[in-house]
Amino acid sequence: MSYLNPNQNVSRRRSSFNAGLPAQIVPSYTGGVNPGYPDSVQYPNPPGTFGIPAPPPGADPVLWGWFTAVDTDRSGSIYVDELQRALVNGNWSPFDLDTCKMLLNIFDVRKTGSLSFQEFCGMWKYIQEWQNVFRHFDTDSSGSIEGEELANALGRFGYRLTPYLLSLVETKYATVPLNQSHQPLYGPRATAGMTFDRFVRACVVIKTLTETFQSLDVNRTGRVSLDYEQFLAVILSSP
Amino acid sequence: MSYLNPNQNVSRRRSSFNAGLPAQIVPSYTGGVNPGYPDSVQYPNPPGTFGIPAPPPGADPVLWGWFTAVDTDRSGSIYVDELQRALVNGNWSPFDLDTCKMLLNIFDVRKTGSLSFQEFCGMWKYIQEWQNVFRHFDTDSSGSIEGEELANALGRFGYRLTPYLLSLVETKYATVPLNQSHQPLYGPRATAGMTFDRFVRACVVIKTLTETFQSLDVNRTGRVSLDYEQFLAVILSSP
Repeated sequence: MSYLNPNQNVSRRRSSFNAGLPAQIVPSYTGGVNPGYPDSVQYPNPPGTFGIPAPPPGADPVLWGWFTAVDTDRSGSIYVDELQRALVNGNWSPFDLDTCKMLLNIFDVRKTGSLSFQEFCGMWKYIQEWQNVFRHFDTDSSGSIEGEELANALGRFGYRLTPYLLSLVETKYATVPLNQSHQPLYGPRATAGMTFDRFVRACVVIKTLTETFQSLDVNRTGRVSLDYEQFLAVILSSP
Repeated sequence: MSYLNPNQNVSRRRSSFNAGLPAQIVPSYTGGVNPGYPDSVQYPNPPGTFGIPAPPPGADPVLWGWFTAVDTDRSGSIYVDELQRALVNGNWSPFDLDTCKMLLNIFDVRKTGSLSFQEFCGMWKYIQEWQNVFRHFDTDSSGSIEGEELANALGRFGYRLTPYLLSLVETKYATVPLNQSHQPLYGPRATAGMTFDRFVRACVVIKTLTETFQSLDVNRTGRVSLDYEQFLAVILSSP
């Protein structure tokens, strides 16, 4: 337990209802306020005070509870640091900052650098769909995706990569290098494959790069020609 | 303090000698063993027992102390999960897993997936040199690199990127999205620029991609032609 952060400890005590998911939201510590249950709403709550604001009309009360739990500063929007403190993999490791930035960029349709409640609901649904994908392809139920599982997942999405490319994807997004079977004495178990958040990022990167390649290959020659500026821009623009 | 992990608390108490550095090593919790002082060596210590092994002949005792502190499972090698638990930025945020994997790949000359003491010493020197670079270019001493500071640093390294490319680098490697000035109520202060570890990764990525472009542009035409396999391989091979 030594390496769990306080948020993770909070979540462990609550884990009976969500244990075993490839990813979950850990409510951040909110100074003694019960974060998840809109029944306890005191309305109105001015921004910045402790207490849970009332949900917008028609809002799913469970999702609103999660939203207010993740929005620790009660700004009414979720920023990337709040997202990173809230999202953990099935082995309790936090999502990478780059995965959180990617999720925020996908769902930040207003381009404010944060997620409104409506945008958060979109992200939530997206994560739940990816959880189903992850569970489906994690055929050995190890909590990580590796080897054949990765090839199967990408193949089902329509990406038939060569063994060489598959090995590059696996190496880049593995949670620990594949040539080590080392396990720490304390703390979360390290896996040689990809935890949930890195699997999602790997798949989104392959999709993005494939679409970029197709858009650059205007004459369908199977090749693209890039100058230095384009070369760097393509790579720096991918998640 | 709510978001500090136990390792960081340990380090805070010890921070008088290294406060203000853009990066530092936090000794992991070692089960009650004083991790940093080879004076307390009991020799010989079989691998796997608690106690600090004797340094190799001629080893720098301070570096040996750090090495044994980071090598929490006493395997005699440092793995990526140990590295990630040990390395923190000046604002106490842990290094990204991808930066730790990059550092390990650079210094793992034996290709074992881990760092020997000698390899660790190389990485240590490298980080110290980057600390000096970071401090030099962090002209406003904000603890992060942004805007003009990034342009100055990359320019000094010989990379005169267009404003567009600079903005892409800054967006990709910023610790929080640049269009937000949001600060959490609790926990480490988020910066709009790059913390130390992401700045180092950004610079290494630009260097790697530039060298890759040059090696592909064999006729020095200023353009490279890539098929889908090469295109993905180039990107997936960069840190």
